Amino acid sequence: MSLILTPLSGIPLIRHGDNLADVIVQALQTNKLALEENDILVFAQKIVSKAEGRVVNLATVTPSQRAVELARETEKDARIVELVLRESSEILRTRPGTIIVEHRLGFVCANAGIDHSNVSGEGNNAEEWVLLLPKEPDRSAEMIRQEIEAKTGKQVGILIIDSHGRAWRNGTVGVAIGIAGLPGLQDLRGKPDLFGFTLRITQVGVADELAAAASLVMGQAAEGTPVVHVRGFPYPLREGSLKELLRPKDQDLFR
Amino acid sequence: MSLILTPLSGIPLIRHGDNLADVIVQALQTNKLALEENDILVFAQKIVSKAEGRVVNLATVTPSQRAVELARETEKDARIVELVLRESSEILRTRPGTIIVEHRLGFVCANAGIDHSNVSGEGNNAEEWVLLLPKEPDRSAEMIRQEIEAKTGKQVGILIIDSHGRAWRNGTVGVAIGIAGLPGLQDLRGKPDLFGFTLRITQVGVADELAAAASLVMGQAAEGTPVVHVRGFPYPLREGSLKELLRPKDQDLFR
Repeated sequence: MSLILTPLSGIPLIRHGDNLADVIVQALQTNKLALEENDILVFAQKIVSKAEGRVVNLATVTPSQRAVELARETEKDARIVELVLRESSEILRTRPGTIIVEHRLGFVCANAGIDHSNVSGEGNNAEEWVLLLPKEPDRSAEMIRQEIEAKTGKQVGILIIDSHGRAWRNGTVGVAIGIAGLPGLQDLRGKPDLFGFTLRITQVGVADELAAAASLVMGQAAEGTPVVHVRGFPYPLREGSLKELLRPKDQDLFR
Repeated sequence: MSLILTPLSGIPLIRHGDNLADVIVQALQTNKLALEENDILVFAQKIVSKAEGRVVNLATVTPSQRAVELARETEKDARIVELVLRESSEILRTRPGTIIVEHRLGFVCANAGIDHSNVSGEGNNAEEWVLLLPKEPDRSAEMIRQEIEAKTGKQVGILIIDSHGRAWRNGTVGVAIGIAGLPGLQDLRGKPDLFGFTLRITQVGVADELAAAASLVMGQAAEGTPVVHVRGFPYPLREGSLKELLRPKDQDLFR
């Protein structure tokens, strides 16, 4: 069976308080797509954060002494560094323009995932506004899932994704930051290979692979489409969580 | 437009000397798929390596002193460690069972990508055989591309992928190790975002995102299908190379 990823056209600009399930049900109609059981909907983090009001006016942020010092070291805006510190549980590396952190959500990423593009504030001087990641993306995904089930009667998977850099490869790739109703990891332990030997590589980051696939069709910026409909995910849907994908600190090869 | 990934069924077990272009043209017919311009074919590293005879009989490998020591430290087979050393330009980290290296091809990966599953030798005691990565995967991809163009008249992209672990996330994901006829990185520099600001994140690892997508549908092991047909890649095809994805050492945050 084919895996089919369809970006939904016609999604309006999302504002604080918008109901994403309503928006998506409408967009599915516009795109003449009827949900089926086991479909997955992938959301760009940005619109989930916007709907949840995670936009911050930099004019309201007073940087701490630590933020001022780190801003000088990394050549960044001290107010943004202050937000990075608030959103992170640990600073792991710094480079000019980049602060690699353990985000309070548990994953490692640059600049705590704080996004400075495609954010408008209350009208003027939009350069002064930034967007934080959703407070609890697994919970956001679960709420969207329940609302879509209530509205359509269909059980679907919901994936919230962001774009992350990699330590040793160029370019960003889509990764999962919130999961409801699909596996984060697929455990292949114990399945025999073609010649009957037990497989050594046992766990596949299937939610991250799907995130990368969806990111590819979302595009970026002005042409971007922030929701992707997925049909043909090759594993059974089940309860799932971002936590499956977080490597315990003592097994992290980066630290 | 949708991105459609179709795993090709009926690919036979590949042996040294098999012509992969022939195999794929046959498989496309079996799967009732006609190539179109701008389609992409994604190959699991394993079948490219097999076709190129990159299988090694461990009985022929004499471990060096350094391999014996590293094998003791990492609790691995000294003959496999010897091959890891031969295939690598630098050892970056060691853990029980895992040696993180810079592969001679330039990327960072575990155990030099040496694969111990789904390898058969010349009949008996297949546990004694392992598979190395293709010698020059970009070149392998380019040769397959030229042969497919000669056989079908269609210009397609060719991507060779492997599964890699990540430093700070659980589970493997598909990544590009050989590229012909498609971009490795897509540069979005200078494109304005929705509100007219210049984008800060400028480069997307599109070949890695496609590798992850294809890996998802390839599955693993006995049920695996080692070639995936891709339609609807959202960027124009062009010349490309794995080198685009390799972060220069001095910008590598891991080292």
